[in-house]
Amino acid sequence: MGPGPINAYPRVLQAMSNQLIGQYDPVMTGYMQQVQQLYRGVFNTSNEATLLIDGTARAGIEAVLVSALKPGDKVLIPVIGRFGHLLCEIAYRVGAEIRTIEVEWGEVCDPALIEKEIKAFQPKMLATVQGDTSTTMNQPLAEIGEICSRYGVLFYCDATASVGGNALKVDEWYLDAVSVGLQKCLGGPSGSAPITLSDGFVNEISKRRHIELGLRTEQHSAGSEPMIRSNYFDLPMILDYWGEERLNHHTEATTMLYAARECARLFLEEGENAVLDRHEVAGQAMAQGLETMGLKLFGNQKYKMNNVVGVYIPQHIDGEAIRSELLNLFGIEIGTSFGPLHGKIWRIGTMGYNARQEAVLSTLAALEAVLVKHKAAINTGVGVQAAMTCYAAHFQAQSVLAK
Amino acid sequence: MGPGPINAYPRVLQAMSNQLIGQYDPVMTGYMQQVQQLYRGVFNTSNEATLLIDGTARAGIEAVLVSALKPGDKVLIPVIGRFGHLLCEIAYRVGAEIRTIEVEWGEVCDPALIEKEIKAFQPKMLATVQGDTSTTMNQPLAEIGEICSRYGVLFYCDATASVGGNALKVDEWYLDAVSVGLQKCLGGPSGSAPITLSDGFVNEISKRRHIELGLRTEQHSAGSEPMIRSNYFDLPMILDYWGEERLNHHTEATTMLYAARECARLFLEEGENAVLDRHEVAGQAMAQGLETMGLKLFGNQKYKMNNVVGVYIPQHIDGEAIRSELLNLFGIEIGTSFGPLHGKIWRIGTMGYNARQEAVLSTLAALEAVLVKHKAAINTGVGVQAAMTCYAAHFQAQSVLAK
Repeated sequence: MGPGPINAYPRVLQAMSNQLIGQYDPVMTGYMQQVQQLYRGVFNTSNEATLLIDGTARAGIEAVLVSALKPGDKVLIPVIGRFGHLLCEIAYRVGAEIRTIEVEWGEVCDPALIEKEIKAFQPKMLATVQGDTSTTMNQPLAEIGEICSRYGVLFYCDATASVGGNALKVDEWYLDAVSVGLQKCLGGPSGSAPITLSDGFVNEISKRRHIELGLRTEQHSAGSEPMIRSNYFDLPMILDYWGEERLNHHTEATTMLYAARECARLFLEEGENAVLDRHEVAGQAMAQGLETMGLKLFGNQKYKMNNVVGVYIPQHIDGEAIRSELLNLFGIEIGTSFGPLHGKIWRIGTMGYNARQEAVLSTLAALEAVLVKHKAAINTGVGVQAAMTCYAAHFQAQSVLAK
Repeated sequence: MGPGPINAYPRVLQAMSNQLIGQYDPVMTGYMQQVQQLYRGVFNTSNEATLLIDGTARAGIEAVLVSALKPGDKVLIPVIGRFGHLLCEIAYRVGAEIRTIEVEWGEVCDPALIEKEIKAFQPKMLATVQGDTSTTMNQPLAEIGEICSRYGVLFYCDATASVGGNALKVDEWYLDAVSVGLQKCLGGPSGSAPITLSDGFVNEISKRRHIELGLRTEQHSAGSEPMIRSNYFDLPMILDYWGEERLNHHTEATTMLYAARECARLFLEEGENAVLDRHEVAGQAMAQGLETMGLKLFGNQKYKMNNVVGVYIPQHIDGEAIRSELLNLFGIEIGTSFGPLHGKIWRIGTMGYNARQEAVLSTLAALEAVLVKHKAAINTGVGVQAAMTCYAAHFQAQSVLAK
């Protein structure tokens, strides 16, 4: 029950024990096409360029940034938490010129501020995080997308922590590039990074297209702009590998592709609305349970992600001792925190397979028991009840809707 | 039965269906330590810095090159096949100054030539491939290691295709950095790249050590040299993540770690000598079967890898039609080839789980049947027999040794 990675869905685990298939076997290339189509569903997009990067979520981030940004290109980055810093860090190494908009941790960035900075800085790209687990905030994107589209700025978003538990409408919100991971609400393991790229973004990076030495023939046309600084993260090459010609690049990570495929199938079978609802009620029940217990929540609750909540560690309580007893006595892991929040808040996740009533209720019950053991000043016997009430109201509303 | 990826060992598939564990759970960090120790065994090294890169085999290559080579640093690369070109390609993007030694496909590089070029070019690093599946050649490394050590040149080797099926003695051969993948003789999926780095190599890259923005504290000392151009492949950061402080970098790809762990356990349980023997006899039996059938082998057989053989497509035979019938009628995949060999040879693998007598014999029987169907001029009824004879001699020699 941490901020991710989390327990995987049993069907995802099962999928990963399937025997491998050769990368050019028609069954495998068929699976690759299925994965592209499935993630168009997850991302709410019709982008042809929808595929997997073989690596953890930050591999997807680096692939987007290193392919789009040449040394000297300008990028504007709102920093709402640790993962905003990560975008800066990666963009810096790519050689980009960076301007940041720093936002107090626990808040999100005002679109008006973004418009102002776009006018002043005239960036090639705006790069932002949607859900930043370090602060539990979920940055609204629709307005920012509209602004970027109006000013002709490429709009990239890292939605690793939010995808599958919070709305993400790539086409409707004018997103040009989105990268995610499986290990949060999609209920899979870390190690595969689905991405989607708009046609405009693909046009842009195609200027740097290049065919690998030893695979090049005279039919292959190269782009006019400088080569991308990474081979592994060269998106035009990766597009050629996933495309019709299936030009060899890496050897696709077969098992991780099985996992990614199963995560998306589960999401689409349950249905986007049902999955988001399930995350929303789990998040609400967890938050209300904690508050009713007398604990204080962190950050602007209006913008909290559905799938993770920050909660202040009560005074005079050793946060790490509580975490360790939860793990050792109950087998439940909750998260510590980074940077300015380190030692001040815990982060509790309700995502993917763990966005279930039983997981929420048992976590609240276990946390209460451990806090009582440590003589924390909390309200006993009411936290779990509040979460149950929250779920009951949700199920009733659902059954009314069904009639 | 292609040049990889191949079928995984059943125990590896099983390991990948295990439930995930949080990245800082003591069980998980314990597994990480086990993996380090297991791969020291696989690599025959005492290198402390032995760990996994989360990505396919070329992720391991890029991590080594981008961390060690600053723009302008000189690297000498013997090119014995396609994957030598890949090293050049990656080193070029890193900004290195490259000199290559081109070797005719089907041969290996003479150490004397390497010494001559080291004297003339004075590189910081020599980067080579051990087994290059594109040509089936296995570059001898012991002498080259001795030369590099004598001239103070960092010696890096990509041993993806050869590890686990051909001898690889990291410490004895003075290798400074080695990267591999699981999808060849180790019998696992693509998607995890074990690497090992000598203390000297670690010293060198530590000059570029850097702590991520948002994780940095005053206790952390940074290196004096320019920052590594990639965050994802920043080896000093990855070492900090695997090290005692467990400083957050990526989220370790749990399932791939399970796979890597099981691959190494299988290798060490069976025992290095037994595994190498099994690959040697499988390779011999396959080669003798093909030759006895009247087919011509590709390349200098003295230096052939144990785990893959190149065989000329008989005249007037459509190589792709044969491959496709083998796949569709027998469920057996063999490999096509790259670059100058494309359309001229097939590549047939005998590695990992497929380095078994039944796999070798069935492949030869199936290939014979399909070639006969296509009216190829081959000797019938003798190829499989030759392979059986080869195995019988091997088992007899083993039983004599056992007495």
